[in-house]
Amino acid sequence: MKVGNRHYRTIWVNEDGVSVDIIDQRWLPHDFRVVTLKTVDDVAVAIRDMWVRGAPLIGVTAAYGVAIAMRADPSDAHLDKVWDELNETRPTAINLRWALNAMRDYLRPIAAEKRAEAAYLRAAAIADEDVDLNRSIGRYGLDVIRKIAATKKPGEPVNILTHCNAGWLATVDYGTATAPIYLATEEGIPVHVYVDETRPRNQGAQLTAWEMNGHGVPHTLVVDNAGGHLMQHGDVDMVIVGTDRTTARGDVCNKIGTYLKALAARDNGVPFYVALPSPTIDWTVHDGVKEIPIEERNSDEVSYVQGRLADGSITTVRISPDGSPAANPAFDVTPARLITGLITERGIATPSEEGLKALFPERS
Amino acid sequence: MKVGNRHYRTIWVNEDGVSVDIIDQRWLPHDFRVVTLKTVDDVAVAIRDMWVRGAPLIGVTAAYGVAIAMRADPSDAHLDKVWDELNETRPTAINLRWALNAMRDYLRPIAAEKRAEAAYLRAAAIADEDVDLNRSIGRYGLDVIRKIAATKKPGEPVNILTHCNAGWLATVDYGTATAPIYLATEEGIPVHVYVDETRPRNQGAQLTAWEMNGHGVPHTLVVDNAGGHLMQHGDVDMVIVGTDRTTARGDVCNKIGTYLKALAARDNGVPFYVALPSPTIDWTVHDGVKEIPIEERNSDEVSYVQGRLADGSITTVRISPDGSPAANPAFDVTPARLITGLITERGIATPSEEGLKALFPERS
Repeated sequence: MKVGNRHYRTIWVNEDGVSVDIIDQRWLPHDFRVVTLKTVDDVAVAIRDMWVRGAPLIGVTAAYGVAIAMRADPSDAHLDKVWDELNETRPTAINLRWALNAMRDYLRPIAAEKRAEAAYLRAAAIADEDVDLNRSIGRYGLDVIRKIAATKKPGEPVNILTHCNAGWLATVDYGTATAPIYLATEEGIPVHVYVDETRPRNQGAQLTAWEMNGHGVPHTLVVDNAGGHLMQHGDVDMVIVGTDRTTARGDVCNKIGTYLKALAARDNGVPFYVALPSPTIDWTVHDGVKEIPIEERNSDEVSYVQGRLADGSITTVRISPDGSPAANPAFDVTPARLITGLITERGIATPSEEGLKALFPERS
Repeated sequence: MKVGNRHYRTIWVNEDGVSVDIIDQRWLPHDFRVVTLKTVDDVAVAIRDMWVRGAPLIGVTAAYGVAIAMRADPSDAHLDKVWDELNETRPTAINLRWALNAMRDYLRPIAAEKRAEAAYLRAAAIADEDVDLNRSIGRYGLDVIRKIAATKKPGEPVNILTHCNAGWLATVDYGTATAPIYLATEEGIPVHVYVDETRPRNQGAQLTAWEMNGHGVPHTLVVDNAGGHLMQHGDVDMVIVGTDRTTARGDVCNKIGTYLKALAARDNGVPFYVALPSPTIDWTVHDGVKEIPIEERNSDEVSYVQGRLADGSITTVRISPDGSPAANPAFDVTPARLITGLITERGIATPSEEGLKALFPERS
């Protein structure tokens, strides 16, 4: 999407045909920095330390990591090694394993000397597929926004609350949860987005707000605590979020705090949608709360906050007392019963095993 | 409670018998600063700019503000003027008006030349009453903790989640929500407290965690988003929070985000208690969501975060992009239907008009 009137994707191959450029998201919204990844280790660090984040973008970045690896050494042993190395970078996002499996399964039957070229083509295809998926999700979500807009007075915006960043920065382009918002804006439907700050890493304040700014979408930043109050007072027409992993019965594992917004939406009759490209569905898992391992991240992410000083430099400040420990579970699970609809690239599924399999019958 | 092994209250009269010292809570947990309030304007600033905060402490500070005013000019006109000035400092906390009314009603019949002395005595009595109320709340809440502890294996702690700071820093001493926790600790019952960070002002990270540290209570800081996940996994035995205003039917207006925790508690069968000294009950209000005005604070509290730099200095950093507006509602309302019990100084009320009036029959 747009950054200062120029269109960007979040990841692209350089003219050398080998190295890959990414937007280093750690410095947003204050600095827009592009960095070059030249080795598998570069790619692993970029995923693990969240230079790139968001389940779909993690998958695409890992796919390019495999391609970079094949250029260096296209052997079977190296393919297995890089699969293992990249698979360990983040534990929750299912797209990571999905992309690594897609690359390995595709490359395995190909002769070693042709693997590098094939790997770059396959990674590029995965990236393009992601854009197509998101555009398709966007069109189905747009129908939901259109219907709400039809109930409004002329000019009155559709108020949409979103949590974390399931925006174009979390994907290759368009985003998942934001795709309907961007398409609605392009169609001239007035929308206004409540952007949850999303502690501890502030992806809402730092990334989603920045995206909305860049693309000219009216929005208001709120703390994660505020959504329930806004819904109680009729200020939210719909909630739409992304997901890092969706179970076969429609439970959704997304950024910590999503579950609380789903509870508030249910309590106030606000529709709660989850936007998901089908690679985030883990058909092997059913009960999300019991079965999905939740990444416990470094407690410093809770004890410290990053931001910009008055002089423009970016730094971190400690907010809690020395000696107070912190816990940092990164995701929670929203049970299917709290979800209005799962917006996939094939349509909106009712959040159940039957609903998902009706859209993905090849899984039955 | 204890700060570095010395016992403190949050407010006390100096040896001059006129000025009042407070703990300036803006610099906690990094700096422990005591400041002296000498004029009504000092007191108004201290309340409005949250040098002191917490409904009970706001009330007591305002009471001392009236006393300071009476020393300067004990006339009826001045009494009315200071009532107006202090009443405007914070819009939501009912204790503020309660304390101002208590002072005015008490002083009005007293001859002007005796008003100053009487005012200091009355303010001191209000402060002492607050401590008594909290100790009494603590004893009733302790019964709840004791019962949960009895279901645990020996040595296994009772896990208590709290939001914001309804600790001794929000009162004169003991706190409201924390009083049962402090009494349990003194009784040797193992407790462990999950401290919600409480964005945007981080009262949990900055004040409650600091209190727990000072008094040696085991605790873990978590972001506001985490509570639902913890409850889903059985990590929370009870929630206890304070309130800034309680309606006659038991709706509770407390720090923004409280409502979300109450929803999660209900969804997971976790008991949700509110600790409240009866001055926080507004018997004139019934439907909290519809009737209680919610303070909208400066959006900079959302866009900026205060903390300590590596060099020890305290500063603020901007977390969101320039050009992204923010909204900052400071409180939300938790409907009575989500509350297990209202812990008052007279016992635990069922959250309903009948429940409250059974304990406060003089209001029937």
